[in-house]
Amino acid sequence: MTHDRIEVLGLGNSLVDLFAHAEDDFLVAEAMQKGAMTLIDEARAETLYKRMGPATIISGGSAANTIVGVRSLGVASAYIGKVKADELGRAFIHDIRTSGVKFDVKPATDGPATGRCLSFVTPDGERTMNTYLGASQLLSPSDLDENLVREARIVYLEGYMWDRPAAKETFQKAARIAHAAGARVALTLSDSFCVDRFRSEFLDLIRTGLVDTIFANTEEVHSLYQTADFATALEALRAEGALGVVTRSERGSIIVEGEGTFEVPAFPIDRLIDTTGAGDLFAAGFLAGMARDAGHVKSAQLGALAAAEVIQHLGARPQVRLADLAAENGLAV
Amino acid sequence: MTHDRIEVLGLGNSLVDLFAHAEDDFLVAEAMQKGAMTLIDEARAETLYKRMGPATIISGGSAANTIVGVRSLGVASAYIGKVKADELGRAFIHDIRTSGVKFDVKPATDGPATGRCLSFVTPDGERTMNTYLGASQLLSPSDLDENLVREARIVYLEGYMWDRPAAKETFQKAARIAHAAGARVALTLSDSFCVDRFRSEFLDLIRTGLVDTIFANTEEVHSLYQTADFATALEALRAEGALGVVTRSERGSIIVEGEGTFEVPAFPIDRLIDTTGAGDLFAAGFLAGMARDAGHVKSAQLGALAAAEVIQHLGARPQVRLADLAAENGLAV
Repeated sequence: MTHDRIEVLGLGNSLVDLFAHAEDDFLVAEAMQKGAMTLIDEARAETLYKRMGPATIISGGSAANTIVGVRSLGVASAYIGKVKADELGRAFIHDIRTSGVKFDVKPATDGPATGRCLSFVTPDGERTMNTYLGASQLLSPSDLDENLVREARIVYLEGYMWDRPAAKETFQKAARIAHAAGARVALTLSDSFCVDRFRSEFLDLIRTGLVDTIFANTEEVHSLYQTADFATALEALRAEGALGVVTRSERGSIIVEGEGTFEVPAFPIDRLIDTTGAGDLFAAGFLAGMARDAGHVKSAQLGALAAAEVIQHLGARPQVRLADLAAENGLAV
Repeated sequence: MTHDRIEVLGLGNSLVDLFAHAEDDFLVAEAMQKGAMTLIDEARAETLYKRMGPATIISGGSAANTIVGVRSLGVASAYIGKVKADELGRAFIHDIRTSGVKFDVKPATDGPATGRCLSFVTPDGERTMNTYLGASQLLSPSDLDENLVREARIVYLEGYMWDRPAAKETFQKAARIAHAAGARVALTLSDSFCVDRFRSEFLDLIRTGLVDTIFANTEEVHSLYQTADFATALEALRAEGALGVVTRSERGSIIVEGEGTFEVPAFPIDRLIDTTGAGDLFAAGFLAGMARDAGHVKSAQLGALAAAEVIQHLGARPQVRLADLAAENGLAV
């Protein structure tokens, strides 16, 4: 079967999100770190699910959300990640494929269930995530379609993958193949606690040149350089020599590359519903722009537009064709 | 285990809804009757799922939605219906129980999967439903907790149950027990095509007195009396001697009982997103009012309020505590 040449390939934890509304009191009672992603085991996932209100189920996974966003912007994309052949795994595969993303990884037939993220959305629109990795942690280097990696212009990797050895190896292998093929390798730092767990390894990835583009939000760059001062963190990121793309919620984004600095405002919204996927979809817009050599400013504008769409509804997957939205806003790629 | 005395008990098809956005062209290409509910078999469900875009999964089922709404209004309620012990079945049970509804029917351990409704939401907010009944059609009289039926003040039945013999028998048995115990028995006509399939049987249910309250929308009363004239249909319904509760979308509702006629306007909304559950939640408000002897007008106002909440987001389950919404609008029961 032929397909359009893949421009962007993503690798990540393949998760299905279960969303419920919750009050801040609930987060306190459950000792959750508001706004963060916490890894949980199966027993905790069961317990927490029982305490969770009625849930809306929508496919998720950080890099998967990003890749669906890239495709929605009209840029051919593929995704590599692992689910189990259970109902939620089938839903994940259905959703990513019917989004137009190439996805061919065989689901696991035994072992843990498809990974899931129990996501609590508080009245302020902030989401607090509890992830049971399940089958997603079984992704291994043998799942990597090397030809697909070589085909991509950009390979995008999720910091969250660092939490499990097999996934981490897959990540490293993909990055090496991509660079050998002349592609860019981008890493999202994922979460400030994730950075805290793997700070020196993430810095090594950048300093050894295995990764050439970093996506982060303010908390993540603060955590990476262990400073509370944004300017200090930003200059430290700039000094790495990589392309640094930093999102600052409603304050927009700032891109640093060598001596260059590019600031782009957030896109206005009517009503914030759920911030889940804001960073993922910003990355989607930026990557789509990058894949088409649109320049950093236009790429960041596309990111802002895609993020604005996703935070105005529940879930981290776009509900409209982002390519149409981009065209309406003079940002077609 | 003790519980609050159940005021409203619902019986229906236990379904999980899979929502996707679709264009009108898609409905035409798939020969779907826009706005209707069509029964499909497993093979068609598989085919249609493949053609469906990324889907949001939210528990559904007409009577189940209604009963969750009743509970959300602060009225103790229970539900009887069948799912399978698979992932979607577990999600259904989780959602209904964490909504505070008493639900004790054992899930099936073999046979067809949990029933599902593939629901296509067009840009005008209308939903077109394709239902694979799956395990829900296995509901049988032995699943009926007779004490629970005797305990309820109102037993609410879904016309859709008439599509399968075992569910229909369960329906009839519940109605008989309820009437013997002095409870009211309400039937929703569900869908105009459903009325078309069972017109004479539905009329018999009313005329033999097995059902004393009818919920219907305009299409359903037109279909019941095979007339295109609303006034004719309404007078025919009145002549049955039952309590008739008819919803007319944005034109509000009209209640007929003996010589009495009560008209209540729709509740204003900001933005129509998805009409799924409008009728179910109107019934929820009306039943909650009835259970508390609130009078037909206030009951219909509660119905209008609950329907307005549910059509402003995806899915047929309330996303806020309806009791709070009722209190804010001077409609506490």
